[in-house]
Amino acid sequence: MSSIDKLTDIFKSFPGIGPRQARRFVYHLLSKNTEEISEFASAVESLRKESRQCGECFGFYLSDGNEGICPVCRDDSRDKSSLMVLAKDVDMETVEKSRVFKGFYFVLGNTLAILEKEPERKIRISELINRMSRQSSTLKEVVLAFNLNPEGEHTAEYVKERIRSMAEQAGIKITLPGRGLSSGAELEYADSKTLENALKNRE
Amino acid sequence: MSSIDKLTDIFKSFPGIGPRQARRFVYHLLSKNTEEISEFASAVESLRKESRQCGECFGFYLSDGNEGICPVCRDDSRDKSSLMVLAKDVDMETVEKSRVFKGFYFVLGNTLAILEKEPERKIRISELINRMSRQSSTLKEVVLAFNLNPEGEHTAEYVKERIRSMAEQAGIKITLPGRGLSSGAELEYADSKTLENALKNRE
Amino acid sequence: MSSIDKLTDIFKSFPGIGPRQARRFVYHLLSKNTEEISEFASAVESLRKESRQCGECFGFYLSDGNEGICPVCRDDSRDKSSLMVLAKDVDMETVEKSRVFKGFYFVLGNTLAILEKEPERKIRISELINRMSRQSSTLKEVVLAFNLNPEGEHTAEYVKERIRSMAEQAGIKITLPGRGLSSGAELEYADSKTLENALKNRE
Amino acid sequence: MSSIDKLTDIFKSFPGIGPRQARRFVYHLLSKNTEEISEFASAVESLRKESRQCGECFGFYLSDGNEGICPVCRDDSRDKSSLMVLAKDVDMETVEKSRVFKGFYFVLGNTLAILEKEPERKIRISELINRMSRQSSTLKEVVLAFNLNPEGEHTAEYVKERIRSMAEQAGIKITLPGRGLSSGAELEYADSKTLENALKNRE
Repeated sequence: MSSIDKLTDIFKSFPGIGPRQARRFVYHLLSKNTEEISEFASAVESLRKESRQCGECFGFYLSDGNEGICPVCRDDSRDKSSLMVLAKDVDMETVEKSRVFKGFYFVLGNTLAILEKEPERKIRISELINRMSRQSSTLKEVVLAFNLNPEGEHTAEYVKERIRSMAEQAGIKITLPGRGLSSGAELEYADSKTLENALKNRE
Repeated sequence: MSSIDKLTDIFKSFPGIGPRQARRFVYHLLSKNTEEISEFASAVESLRKESRQCGECFGFYLSDGNEGICPVCRDDSRDKSSLMVLAKDVDMETVEKSRVFKGFYFVLGNTLAILEKEPERKIRISELINRMSRQSSTLKEVVLAFNLNPEGEHTAEYVKERIRSMAEQAGIKITLPGRGLSSGAELEYADSKTLENALKNRE
Repeated sequence: MSSIDKLTDIFKSFPGIGPRQARRFVYHLLSKNTEEISEFASAVESLRKESRQCGECFGFYLSDGNEGICPVCRDDSRDKSSLMVLAKDVDMETVEKSRVFKGFYFVLGNTLAILEKEPERKIRISELINRMSRQSSTLKEVVLAFNLNPEGEHTAEYVKERIRSMAEQAGIKITLPGRGLSSGAELEYADSKTLENALKNRE
Repeated sequence: MSSIDKLTDIFKSFPGIGPRQARRFVYHLLSKNTEEISEFASAVESLRKESRQCGECFGFYLSDGNEGICPVCRDDSRDKSSLMVLAKDVDMETVEKSRVFKGFYFVLGNTLAILEKEPERKIRISELINRMSRQSSTLKEVVLAFNLNPEGEHTAEYVKERIRSMAEQAGIKITLPGRGLSSGAELEYADSKTLENALKNRE
């Protein structure tokens, strides 16, 4: 396979990229001078070299010498009583950027399909339980923050079930993000489920 | 002005319809046979004749002999302790279709622009206060259900301010629909405001 | 059926309108005052009364006293040597608005599906032949202007076949609009068929 | 700048990619294992190493040993009498894939903005003239195939002006791709310019 076809294939696996745009990316690269391509190749290579997975939250981060633990998990000023469990790295990035959460994170790695046969292999559930145990003296709340779709809700159910007894023993509360009208929502276009949640959780 | 231009103008005022589609509508009508156009004209005429505005909720409804009050406001089996205040008829239709609310409705007619100079003329605030007074013996809660955008939030603020003292005297609670993740929401794409609400209202 | 449901059904038959927007149209009408609805109903009724089908081109037009023939077909300053055959009234409106054609029009009423069993009942082919015969002394060219999709091309083939012998006898040329790059076209996104036509018809 | 930010910046320069999606690409890479990232980095590096610019058409191609000339320009079975001048490599890829053109290509590198002050530095006009001179014995036609927008048309005008006298002397015809209805075009939505071209070029 030519490097053009190989790169096209790789770009096709990028989120939201179809075969046509993948091809355009390759032509975009081709038309750059060799210096620019080198820069790109070396940035990718650097990413590979510097990329680390955090031993605490399992998120990916860039190495900065303090190996093993990401900057967020290393930040002593954060709130040790609260742990947010998320499916993906990007979710953590979104929440962290919104600056609304001051506790720590844990990245499960995936959500669970409804009929997932081996949930233990799909998500880091034992690692989560392990982490909760280690921090049970300070931890007061675990927020299960998944997408509000069937997979996300199924994952929340599964995780809740698995951590329930140890959470109860350790006095850790399990919570879910509030459901209701999102920012910018128009009543006229709200679905029944959202209206039901909005009404149930009225403030 | 020709009836083609006149109709085009009217269709342009329809929600979501630009000049081009308005024109297509007219051509669509033109190409129908006279029987079909008659049917359309008479359906519009019937709507005009049967359309009534409810003296209780100020929503529009179709006349069915029991003049003056719409079927919802007439329904004795509904929950008299709860009143939902909405901006528009379509909002009421959406909530009613979702079957999640069993109380009564009140249609303000509009939302208030932030700098609205004569709010009293834009929304039915005195009619709302009047209705709350008349039902103060049974009414326990007023839900201010507006779009979660600046205009909607401003309207909620204004209405809250105006009905506060009488609500307090009558022991009527003023609530807002819960805010947070809407059904189907994906964390990755949630805006900061929504995440903040979701976290504040975690369940 | 209520007039609300009836009107919703009629609006659903409008080009590009789904059930949801049809409903919004009805609510839009409902919330207008009776005077505005009357105006709408009477504009529709006028359209019905004034709408005429031209005996020459079979397009629809508004009556203006000179019954039977539309203003375009009545316009003696137009080019009698050229006749453009179109599928629909809107096509004629588009071409007429572009001011690029100075001849006369003929509206077939439809295009033909590839497997259409009774083409004679679907389009006004005998009326077209009739018109060509009547004007054979002045007519020099018939332009078959249909959409450049399979149905349009099939219709052009069928019409060409049907009018060929009489056109030949009368010395009338049969033409098709030029095919190639449309205004604004970008080469990168052009399909093979368009490129083929553009290359075949290079100027 | 971190390799994350650097890569985000590079991805932002990819065609059609905004800052948000650029970020997602980086996270997509981060979450891949190091083997996959290596594969990506080495595919980019291969592209850089194998990428060549053809000395004849100035298009980019992958090295295959026969250095200097791309496979298309090297193909003796192609039609030497015809040369298509294009703005970009992707245009050449699109035309070549459509298999409708059997001649040779020349990539100008750009189109000219209407007010371009130094057109000579923006496009390979002297290289084009040079190539035409070298092949004047066999060359019969130059097709100027640019986007049908103001920039493309301006570029065609400029190139035509510059190559006119030498083309005349050498008996080389200068042509443009045919303009008219593109494949799939619907008359109702055709713009005036397209209709005018379609009518002017009727077949």
